[in-house]
Amino acid sequence: MFLGLDVITGQSSWKDKALFTPGPLTTSRTTKQAMLRDLGSRDGEFIEIIKDVRKRLVDLGGGYKDYTSILMQGSGTFGIEAVLSSVIAQDGKLLILINGAYGERMLKITGIHRIETVPLRTAEDEVPDPTLLKEALEADPQITHVAVVHCETTTGIINPIEEYGKIVKQFNRIYIVDAMSSFGAYPVDFQECNIDYLISSSNKCIEGVPGFSVIVAKTEILKQTKGFARTLSLDLYAQWEGLEKDGQFRFTPPIHSILAFRQALVELEREGGVKARGERYRGNYDLTLTAMQKLGFKAYLSAEKQGYIITSFYYPDHPNFNFQKLYEGLSAKGHLIYPGKLSHADCFRIGHVGRLGLSDIKALISSISSTLNEMDVELKK
Amino acid sequence: MFLGLDVITGQSSWKDKALFTPGPLTTSRTTKQAMLRDLGSRDGEFIEIIKDVRKRLVDLGGGYKDYTSILMQGSGTFGIEAVLSSVIAQDGKLLILINGAYGERMLKITGIHRIETVPLRTAEDEVPDPTLLKEALEADPQITHVAVVHCETTTGIINPIEEYGKIVKQFNRIYIVDAMSSFGAYPVDFQECNIDYLISSSNKCIEGVPGFSVIVAKTEILKQTKGFARTLSLDLYAQWEGLEKDGQFRFTPPIHSILAFRQALVELEREGGVKARGERYRGNYDLTLTAMQKLGFKAYLSAEKQGYIITSFYYPDHPNFNFQKLYEGLSAKGHLIYPGKLSHADCFRIGHVGRLGLSDIKALISSISSTLNEMDVELKK
Repeated sequence: MFLGLDVITGQSSWKDKALFTPGPLTTSRTTKQAMLRDLGSRDGEFIEIIKDVRKRLVDLGGGYKDYTSILMQGSGTFGIEAVLSSVIAQDGKLLILINGAYGERMLKITGIHRIETVPLRTAEDEVPDPTLLKEALEADPQITHVAVVHCETTTGIINPIEEYGKIVKQFNRIYIVDAMSSFGAYPVDFQECNIDYLISSSNKCIEGVPGFSVIVAKTEILKQTKGFARTLSLDLYAQWEGLEKDGQFRFTPPIHSILAFRQALVELEREGGVKARGERYRGNYDLTLTAMQKLGFKAYLSAEKQGYIITSFYYPDHPNFNFQKLYEGLSAKGHLIYPGKLSHADCFRIGHVGRLGLSDIKALISSISSTLNEMDVELKK
Repeated sequence: MFLGLDVITGQSSWKDKALFTPGPLTTSRTTKQAMLRDLGSRDGEFIEIIKDVRKRLVDLGGGYKDYTSILMQGSGTFGIEAVLSSVIAQDGKLLILINGAYGERMLKITGIHRIETVPLRTAEDEVPDPTLLKEALEADPQITHVAVVHCETTTGIINPIEEYGKIVKQFNRIYIVDAMSSFGAYPVDFQECNIDYLISSSNKCIEGVPGFSVIVAKTEILKQTKGFARTLSLDLYAQWEGLEKDGQFRFTPPIHSILAFRQALVELEREGGVKARGERYRGNYDLTLTAMQKLGFKAYLSAEKQGYIITSFYYPDHPNFNFQKLYEGLSAKGHLIYPGKLSHADCFRIGHVGRLGLSDIKALISSISSTLNEMDVELKK
């Protein structure tokens, strides 16, 4: 954790809280230090950095020749909206597999842009059934695109994107994967999964800071979307065209976030790539789950559906339990956890991602244990 | 200038180039250092910082009770599109005073969103005539909104926003000012200018780093726009509503850019506010202009129209002159200038803004002089 000087409050030093959240995450000191520069947004050095970042992103999923990548200013949702509002023609039709808030958000976006959309909903604790997808595509040849969230951060569930991809390909439709909170932590082979568009963000498992979203696209498919966009800023094709033409962004890029991101990509490689990072996160998850169960908490999802990105835990059934008090008690001890986002169950969430390891998990668990004591909550184990 | 370690190239230290551009700019070391933290995007400390930043923005133009401010992820253009696509009703009609590329860009945005728009064009070296605005509003009661760029970065011309504002008010229309490259450097009184919406960016004259745009809005006017938005991400009203409700962004904020921006706002105040900063920039401009004229360059605009943000200079009439060579020669000496953006004349631009002072200008002028020598360009003086 970095010790610094708060220029506003005059505090002589601090230690930032550890972020057990789905992102923005705790990042490495060196990633943040990469931002201590000012580069010209249209100068050669920065253009080379953009190029390097774009290549590394494609390589992460084995995209090589057939894929390209685009950086889009704004948060992850901006990236999702950029894809949905830019790659579906006026007469296109989208099917969304939904089992959480982020699937619902895609539906909201296509509603605003008046894109015809079929939601295929599944309960939040269930993985969408591939057979239902197959039947839906069989029944409706008007559907041109299929979208799904890889890791639904609502619960932490992992949806089988490779299985869906095979079906989408079989029916020759276009496949959009929201890999916001999984990319960089779960190995994804773009080709194997038949992905046409994958969206993630600078501040998730690649461990950069917020500022932009990243889109990996199958080049031949993207090339067919010129003029489809419904906005100027979020025009995915135009953004790609600009980056290809002279290596520059159309509009001011988040230079410092990109500098941090390049450093984060280098550190991801040094850690051993996506596989090694996934193993670290899985270690964080395993320890968290075991220790939380030992304290008497129950996870919302059954273990086989649960990913190692983030876990939802039920509020314990005890009259003294109060989430806000737990949050504040942990915050006072330097740990930030996350509220729940379920539509029908009271849960809170603990993230397992970012520049955190087993010692951080142990510290978190100790804090949870003592905060429960402070709240006079004794759980049945 | 910051000396650091390039973790990628292994270079042991460097000095960043001085940015004589319209932004992103050279920022202070302390502004960049404010980014060496990771805060929870929904935690109390960060919420307080957002609140402080929003208040300071309103205060900068004497907005106090009647105005509010909104931060929007993305570049300045994202902020322009957020306003144009969020505050004009389906049956609204916009008049844009255009004398440069940024006025044209607004027209492009409203075209994409199918917002009825009347362009009122003036030559790039002329200020739009207030009488023409008056006549246009008299002639067309369907016009609901008027938009203009304060400092057209295309040329560096300053448009008289207070005069236009009086007319817009007289006709009871809504007034949108793109103050992208002037806010923080030119004193603007929101009330005096009758501004309803003002748009700027984190990486212009407040001297922060890129990552978001800032919008100052007259609260009562903004309140009437619920449901007008044509996108999810750039929905201005929803963004404001979220910030007002719990102090949080709807979607991941560019945390580090906001930390830098707060520091930049504090440093602006310490410098003596907008007036003092404007004086420093004017000093940079005066020295640049005098020295460039002495070298034999001619400014595109006449002095009374020219602002102190950025100046366009004609390519000199000499067979050996080549802008790319000038650019590279200066870049090799640690100075970045900017290409032109005029539709009808060959110019390049020099910015006067950012954390630069007279010694930087002197160094730039020396570099220009020696680069001209290298190019074998001797100018008539």
